[in-house]
Amino acid sequence: MTGPVWVGVDVGGTKILAGEVGADGAVRRTAVRPTPGRDVPVAWLEDVLTEAVLEVADGRRLAGVGLAAAGFVDADGERVAFAPHLPWRDDPVRARLADRWGARVALDNDANCAAFAEAELGAARQDSSAVLVTVGTGLGGGIVLDGRVLRGAGGMAGELGHMTVVPDGLPCECGGRGCWEQYCSGRALLRLARSGWGSGSLLEELCDGDPARLTGALVSRAAAQGDDHAQRALADVGRWLGLGLANVVAALDPGCLVVGGGVSAAGEGLLDPARRALTASLVGAAHRRVPPVRLAALGAGAGMVGAALLARLDLPRR
Amino acid sequence: MTGPVWVGVDVGGTKILAGEVGADGAVRRTAVRPTPGRDVPVAWLEDVLTEAVLEVADGRRLAGVGLAAAGFVDADGERVAFAPHLPWRDDPVRARLADRWGARVALDNDANCAAFAEAELGAARQDSSAVLVTVGTGLGGGIVLDGRVLRGAGGMAGELGHMTVVPDGLPCECGGRGCWEQYCSGRALLRLARSGWGSGSLLEELCDGDPARLTGALVSRAAAQGDDHAQRALADVGRWLGLGLANVVAALDPGCLVVGGGVSAAGEGLLDPARRALTASLVGAAHRRVPPVRLAALGAGAGMVGAALLARLDLPRR
Repeated sequence: MTGPVWVGVDVGGTKILAGEVGADGAVRRTAVRPTPGRDVPVAWLEDVLTEAVLEVADGRRLAGVGLAAAGFVDADGERVAFAPHLPWRDDPVRARLADRWGARVALDNDANCAAFAEAELGAARQDSSAVLVTVGTGLGGGIVLDGRVLRGAGGMAGELGHMTVVPDGLPCECGGRGCWEQYCSGRALLRLARSGWGSGSLLEELCDGDPARLTGALVSRAAAQGDDHAQRALADVGRWLGLGLANVVAALDPGCLVVGGGVSAAGEGLLDPARRALTASLVGAAHRRVPPVRLAALGAGAGMVGAALLARLDLPRR
Repeated sequence: MTGPVWVGVDVGGTKILAGEVGADGAVRRTAVRPTPGRDVPVAWLEDVLTEAVLEVADGRRLAGVGLAAAGFVDADGERVAFAPHLPWRDDPVRARLADRWGARVALDNDANCAAFAEAELGAARQDSSAVLVTVGTGLGGGIVLDGRVLRGAGGMAGELGHMTVVPDGLPCECGGRGCWEQYCSGRALLRLARSGWGSGSLLEELCDGDPARLTGALVSRAAAQGDDHAQRALADVGRWLGLGLANVVAALDPGCLVVGGGVSAAGEGLLDPARRALTASLVGAAHRRVPPVRLAALGAGAGMVGAALLARLDLPRR
C-alpha cells in the first residue's frame, strides 16, 4: 500500500466508471457499476458511487475524487443542475460527497472533464487552447483556454451540439430545430446509413438485413471495408463536423480541435472530409492558420481522467 | 498642463479618430483625420497617425497610445496581419510606432478594443464575461472573458460575422456562403428594406423614391415612425441577430450580450425580436439563465477608449 489515492469517476447515463488516476493520467485500477437510473432516490446513486470509489481505494486513504457527470453542472462546480439520466435535480452534490468521503471532491460536466484531460495529457497537450468535440450518440463539447475549462456564467458553456447549423432544420430532442448533433452524431450516421443501402451490400450483410440492428461501429466497419453507401454516410457526417467546427473556429480560433466519441473510431474516414469542409467554409482560410483537427488520444476514460486531474489541481473555478 | 497623456486611436477604413482617454474612460480631447487609403506607402498612414496623436497630446508627454485597427492583428498584438482598407500588410506596427513615439503602444483589432471598453466601463461592466456584437455595415465581434480579450491562437477569435447561419446561403465578400453578417447587418437591412416597399410609404418618401438613397438610419427612422415594411425589415434583422446570438451562447454562455454599431441605434425595434429569437432557439432556455441582451453604452468611440485602456493596463497578451 502506497500513499493516498486520487480517484476519477465518470457518472454516465448507463454506467459508472471509477478509476485510480496518477498525476500522469495513468489509470491503475478501475471499478464499474450500472447506473441505477433517473427515478431512484439520490441516496441509491450515491451509495453505488461510494461502493465504486471504495473498491478503487482498496483500503487506502482517499486524497480526492473527481466526478464527471453526464449533465449540467453550475459554474461554481457545486451543483448538478439537471441530468437527464441521473436522479440529481438542482442538487449540491459536491459538498455532500466531500463530507461523506472526507476527501476533496471536484465536480464538472463529463465533456468538460474529457476536454481538460485531452488538453493536459492528450491530443492537445502541446496547445494553449483546444476545443474537444465528442461525436457519440449525440455531440458534446468542451472548451479549454489557457489551461482552464471554460464554464460560462451559468456553467453551460460548450453545449456545441445544440448550436443551430440549419435554420428550421431537423427537430432535436432539446426542443430546437437544426441542431448540429442532428447532422453530426452517431444517431445521424445511423439515420443516413439506414436510408437506401444497396441490396446485397456489405451493410445489409453486417446487420443481417435488419436496419434496427445496425450500429455506428458496423457502419464504420463497412466503410473501412469499402462499402460505398457507408462511406458516403460517414463522409456526410464528417462534412457536417467540419462545417460546425468552422463556426467554432470563427468564434474562438483555438490552438487545435480534438474529435473524440464513438464515431471518431472511424478515423480519417470522418476526419478527412471534416478537414476539407472546415477549410472550405472558414473565413480567410487562405490567410490564416487553420487549427489542426486531431483524434482524441485518451479514449473512453478521458472523462474519468480529467475529473481526477481537476480534483488534484484544485484550480479556482472562475 | 498636467501629467503625461494616454491616447486611444481608432484607425478605421475611412477616418482616424484619436482622443485623450482618462482612467475612467472619459475622452477629453480628440483629433480626426481622413484615412489616406490602402494603396499609399505605410509611412503616409503613420505620419497622419502621428499628427493626430501629437494634436491630442498638445505638447504634453505621451504616456502611451492604444491603436484599434480595422483589420486582423496577430495574437501577440505586434503585427497587423491584414487590413482591407489600410496599407499595413503583415507588418510589425506596434514596436515601430512605440519607437517613433517613445511611448508604450498597445495594438488590437477594433472590435476587440470596443468589446474591452464595454466590458470595463460600458454595458457589461457588472459582468465577468461578455460578447459584443457590432452590427454596422457588416457584423463584428469581440469576446471578453474574466477581464481579458479572447484573441485565439492566431489572433482571429471573435470573427462572429462569418459564422455560417445558412448552409449554402447568400454569398459573402469573404468568399463563403450564408455568413451571419449577410442576414444581420446594415447591408442586410438595406437589402430587405429596398425590396417591395409600398407605394406612397414613408420609406419611399424618406428617400425620395430612390432606393439607392436609402440608408440604415432612414430605415430605422421609418420603423420608429410606424412604417410597416421598415419595421418588418428591422424585425427580420433582429431575428437573425437572436438566432446567431443563440449559437454564441450555446458555445460560451457569457454573462451578457452587448449590441453596438450603427444598426443598434434602432434600439428595441432590433433588440426585442433578437431577445425573442434567442430564447426560442437556445438549448434549455426554460431551465437556464438566458444572458441579457443590452445596447452598447459607449457609442462610436468605444474602440478608441478600449485601445487606450489596453495601453494603460498593459495586460499580458495571453
